Amino acid sequence: MLLAPEGLILRLISTPMSLYQQRGVSAQKEEVHAATSALDAGLFPQAFCKVYPDYLGGDEDWVSVMHADGAGTKSIIAYLYWKETGDTSVWRGIAQDAIVMNLDDLLCVGIYDNLVFNSTIDRNKHLIPGEVLSELINGSQALFDMLSAQGIGIKYLGGETADVGDVVRTIAVNGTLTARWPRKNIISNEDIKAGDVIVGLAGFGKAHYETAYNSGIASNGLTSARHDILHKHYAEQYPESFDPNTPYKVVYTGKYRLTDSVSIHWNNQQFDTNIGQLILSPTRTFGPVVKQILETMPEAVHGMVHCSGGGQTKCLKYIPKGLAVIKDNLFDTPPIFRMIQASSGADYREMYQVFNMGCRLELFADERHAHALIAIAAAYGIEAQVTGRVVASEKKYLQIQTPEGSLEY
Amino acid sequence: MLLAPEGLILRLISTPMSLYQQRGVSAQKEEVHAATSALDAGLFPQAFCKVYPDYLGGDEDWVSVMHADGAGTKSIIAYLYWKETGDTSVWRGIAQDAIVMNLDDLLCVGIYDNLVFNSTIDRNKHLIPGEVLSELINGSQALFDMLSAQGIGIKYLGGETADVGDVVRTIAVNGTLTARWPRKNIISNEDIKAGDVIVGLAGFGKAHYETAYNSGIASNGLTSARHDILHKHYAEQYPESFDPNTPYKVVYTGKYRLTDSVSIHWNNQQFDTNIGQLILSPTRTFGPVVKQILETMPEAVHGMVHCSGGGQTKCLKYIPKGLAVIKDNLFDTPPIFRMIQASSGADYREMYQVFNMGCRLELFADERHAHALIAIAAAYGIEAQVTGRVVASEKKYLQIQTPEGSLEY
Repeated sequence: MLLAPEGLILRLISTPMSLYQQRGVSAQKEEVHAATSALDAGLFPQAFCKVYPDYLGGDEDWVSVMHADGAGTKSIIAYLYWKETGDTSVWRGIAQDAIVMNLDDLLCVGIYDNLVFNSTIDRNKHLIPGEVLSELINGSQALFDMLSAQGIGIKYLGGETADVGDVVRTIAVNGTLTARWPRKNIISNEDIKAGDVIVGLAGFGKAHYETAYNSGIASNGLTSARHDILHKHYAEQYPESFDPNTPYKVVYTGKYRLTDSVSIHWNNQQFDTNIGQLILSPTRTFGPVVKQILETMPEAVHGMVHCSGGGQTKCLKYIPKGLAVIKDNLFDTPPIFRMIQASSGADYREMYQVFNMGCRLELFADERHAHALIAIAAAYGIEAQVTGRVVASEKKYLQIQTPEGSLEY
Repeated sequence: MLLAPEGLILRLISTPMSLYQQRGVSAQKEEVHAATSALDAGLFPQAFCKVYPDYLGGDEDWVSVMHADGAGTKSIIAYLYWKETGDTSVWRGIAQDAIVMNLDDLLCVGIYDNLVFNSTIDRNKHLIPGEVLSELINGSQALFDMLSAQGIGIKYLGGETADVGDVVRTIAVNGTLTARWPRKNIISNEDIKAGDVIVGLAGFGKAHYETAYNSGIASNGLTSARHDILHKHYAEQYPESFDPNTPYKVVYTGKYRLTDSVSIHWNNQQFDTNIGQLILSPTRTFGPVVKQILETMPEAVHGMVHCSGGGQTKCLKYIPKGLAVIKDNLFDTPPIFRMIQASSGADYREMYQVFNMGCRLELFADERHAHALIAIAAAYGIEAQVTGRVVASEKKYLQIQTPEGSLEY
C-alpha cells in the first residue's frame, strides 16, 4: 500500500477531529436522522427507500414512492475541469449523477420503470452561464433516451432553475424521482436471512452501455476525494470551490492536476484518461441489470443495498435483526480509491466507511442463484462476484476483510 | 412616494447594468427558457405548470404533474435573523415558503389535493446545525397538518439532506410536489378571453388561517429586497450571506436592521412587528380559497396566474394570443414594497417586474362571477378585488396603472 508522507502527517496532526469532519461532511448523517425521526417511515422500515401506500393512485395493491438526491459536491469538480479545459461535456456527467443517485436507490426496492423525474438546479449566475444549464438539461434527456432503449422508462417532467448566487457558490444539481409500483414486487430487505450470499456488482470498468472507462467512484465521498487528490493550485485559483470555514490546511491537499494523464488497465484493455475524467466518471446505473434480474428470476433477490453514503458499511442499516454480514471477498481496490488513499493516508476503516471501494450494488440472495446473477451482470460487461455472506448473530455487526486484515463495524 | 437619496444616486451610477443584474439574478429567466426549449412542454402550453399525460397511472382521463421550487435566497434572511436573535421558528417559515411556492403554482392549473411532497435540503454543516434541520422538517409536517384540516391533502414522502458546504454558503431549501389529477379539471388558461376581469387576491394582511400579519412578499425578489433594505452591517458581520462576485457597493445598501420595530396598520388592526418578521412572512397559500372556488363554482375560473418571478408582469406569459391585459385597479402598494422602493430608488417599471406589489394570485373570470369570487376570499380574511381586465388586441401587451401613471410592458 502507498502512503503519501504528507497525507500521513496531516492525519496525525488533525486528530481528534477527522478530515471528514473538518471539511463539514458527515458520512453517517446522525443529525439528519434525528431531524427526520418524527416522520412517517413508510410501509417497510427495512427497505432501502421509504415506500408509502399508493397516495397517488389510491390502489391498495400498489405503492407510491418519491426520492430526492443529487450530484453533491461532484459538481465542483465538473466546474474546475470545465474552467481549465473548456470541455462542457462534463456537465452531462453531472446530470447523470443526479439522476442515477436517485434511480439506483429505487432499484434497491425493486423499482426500475414507470418513473417521472424533475430537476432542481441552483446556480450562481455570475459563474455558471446558460450553456452549462443546456448541457445539464439536455444531458438529462439524453440519458433518459438511452435508458428508455434499455427498458428503463423515465419521463422528464421539467424542473426549476434558480439564480441564487448568494446561497450557492457555483452550482447545485438535484433531482427527484416519483413512481408507483405493484406492492407485491417491492423488495423490503425483510427476506434477507442467514446463509444468504452477497453478490456484489462493480461500479468500475466499462459496461456495454457506457462509452468510457468508469472509475466507480459514483457520487459519494467526493468532498474527501476532491480535497485529498487535487493540488493546492485549485484553492489558490478557485476560492469559489470550497468553504472558507474549512481550515485551509485540509483544503486541496493532494498532488494532482485534473489534466494529469493516467493509464488504466481493466479487463485486458488500456484506457488512457486523466485524473479529472476518472473522478468525474458519471455514476453507473445498474438499471438494465436489475431489470433483467427481477423480470427473469424475481424470487432470487432477498434484498438490495446501494453502497452510497456510508460506503461498504451501508448494509448495516438495512439487514434485519438477528443477522450480521461478513465481506471477505470484495473486489481488488480499483485505482481511483488507491489514489485517494495514497493521497490522504486514510486508514482502511475510514476508506470503507466513506467509499464503495469498487462494489456499488449488493444483491442478497440464496447461494444457488449466485452464478446466474453474476452471469446476467457479465452479459452487460459488468463484473460481479460473491463478495460476502449473511450469518446469524444476536449482535448486528459487519466484518470486512481488507488488504491489511479484518475490520469490524 | 419616498425616495431614499442614497438609493437614487446608486441607481444612476449603476447604469447600464441594473442592480438586479449586478446581484446575479434574472427575473425573466431568458437563459433558463433557452436551455429548456427542447423539452416536452406538456399537454397545455399556456397552462401555468407543465401538465403531462398520466405516466404514473396510465389513465387517459387523468394527468400527471411534477413541480419543483424552493425558498431561494429567503433562507439567507432566516439565517441572519436566527443568528441575531436565536429565534429558530423562522426556519418553519422557510419550510412553508419552499412548500407554498410549489403548491400555489399548482393551484393555478386547478390542483389542490392528492399531492405528495419531497424535500431537498443542501446545508453548510459548519454553519447550520441539526436543530435547524429539525425546524425545517418538522415545520413542513406541521404545515401539512394545518393544510389537511383545510382539505388540502399533501403527504410528506421524505427527502434528502446533504452536507455540501463547498457548494452552499449557508443553506438551500427546495421541494418537489407530485400529483395526479382529472384531466377535465385542469385549468389550461386557454379559456381566458376578451372581457374577462382579473380578480386579484392579496398576499398581505392576515388570513384566518394565519397567525400573524403577512407582508405579502412571498419568496420572489428576495435578493433585491434583502440587499435594498438591510444595512451594510450584514455584509461586514456575515460575509457568508452574499456572493463575493457581487460588487460590494450593491451589497446590503439599505438602512435597516432586522430587529428594527415597525407598526403595520391593516383592516383597523395594528400589528407591532419588526423588519425581519416582515420580510420573512411565510408565503401565504391560497389553497383553501382556490379549493372552495373550484368546488363550488368550477366553471367560473378561466385561468389563473401566480405572480411569482416576474411579479405583476407574469401574466404576459400565460394569456392566449389575441389578448392584452390592463391592470388599473391594483391594491395600494403594501408597506413592505414601499420600504423596498424607498430604499432602492427603483422605478415603478422595475418594482412591478420584480415584486407582486401586494397582488399574488390572479383569477381570470367572467365579470358576473367577480363578486362571488371576492366573497369567498373575504370569508377567509383575504382581501380581493377586480384589479384589471382582458381586452382583445393583435399585439400582446400589459398596461399597469401605477401611482405615478401608466406603464406598458
